[in-house]
Amino acid sequence: MKRITFWLAAVATVAGVIAFTARASRHADEEASPIYGVKIPAGYRDWQLIAVKQLHFAGMGEQLRAQVGNDIAIKAFEEGTLPFPDGAIIAAIHWTRVPSEDNNKVLDGPFPGTQSFVIGSRVNVQFMVKDSKKYAATGGWGFADFTGEKPGDRALHETCFPCHGPAKDHDYVFTHYAP
Amino acid sequence: MKRITFWLAAVATVAGVIAFTARASRHADEEASPIYGVKIPAGYRDWQLIAVKQLHFAGMGEQLRAQVGNDIAIKAFEEGTLPFPDGAIIAAIHWTRVPSEDNNKVLDGPFPGTQSFVIGSRVNVQFMVKDSKKYAATGGWGFADFTGEKPGDRALHETCFPCHGPAKDHDYVFTHYAP
Repeated sequence: MKRITFWLAAVATVAGVIAFTARASRHADEEASPIYGVKIPAGYRDWQLIAVKQLHFAGMGEQLRAQVGNDIAIKAFEEGTLPFPDGAIIAAIHWTRVPSEDNNKVLDGPFPGTQSFVIGSRVNVQFMVKDSKKYAATGGWGFADFTGEKPGDRALHETCFPCHGPAKDHDYVFTHYAP
Repeated sequence: MKRITFWLAAVATVAGVIAFTARASRHADEEASPIYGVKIPAGYRDWQLIAVKQLHFAGMGEQLRAQVGNDIAIKAFEEGTLPFPDGAIIAAIHWTRVPSEDNNKVLDGPFPGTQSFVIGSRVNVQFMVKDSKKYAATGGWGFADFTGEKPGDRALHETCFPCHGPAKDHDYVFTHYAP
């Protein structure tokens, strides 16, 4: 019994060391977006909500999206500050959209024919990082698009700034703060 | 000039006092939901994001929705704690959904036929407040549904708990934490 306990403890220790090493090395290997060198900001999933969107890609499925911001970005949104101050970061989280049978069963009673859609899985996440000096050539914004922890390629990131061009009057940010 | 400055200061002071009084009295008059006595929790719009939903009400329009939670609720979601601990509060913010011509113009280039939908205006907000003793008869949850700062009537609030019944295995909460 003692021997089993010892081996269990040994295995647990080794597993712990491997897990720790994996986490540490993952952190060190963390990739940055091409062109802009933007890494995934720590803790962004816990940032405050800016707004929500839905996207219908013709023939390519449906997405639900949420935009969240760090404290500097949220303050700027709330106070209507334009351009956004340096240090502002906006994250756009994109998920697949799937029908919710559970919700539909419940809602169909009071609201016949109602269809409820919820989040399926994560597709990608995009970041806009404000640094008016570093990113002066692209409206003061650095861009990044990650699938999992892997940034998209250079060609993808070359589309970011031109795509945001039409929103120039709102400092290149499409999203408005939801009431 | 001195006289003008004095009057401007006086007007500003009076305006400040009126604004403060209005805020204070609004706070005192704040209404609570029938049955449960739940008031709008301070600062809930700044809580962390749980998930996003879309609802198609047959013949009654479209909604985009977001669920946010206070720190106790978010911790429980992240750690998979069930039942939710006392003090957990979940807010579901419901907005109308409108097409975004601005987004469509941009997206139609790389993704022809894409349709983007954004938030129109606030419809209502719902709260679930966990207090296993106070709300023992309704699964430990107190419910509230507000349009603006006005709670819905008693008949509406009588539907909350039965409606959440099918989610009993998930402590009466339909929403799952988005990845």
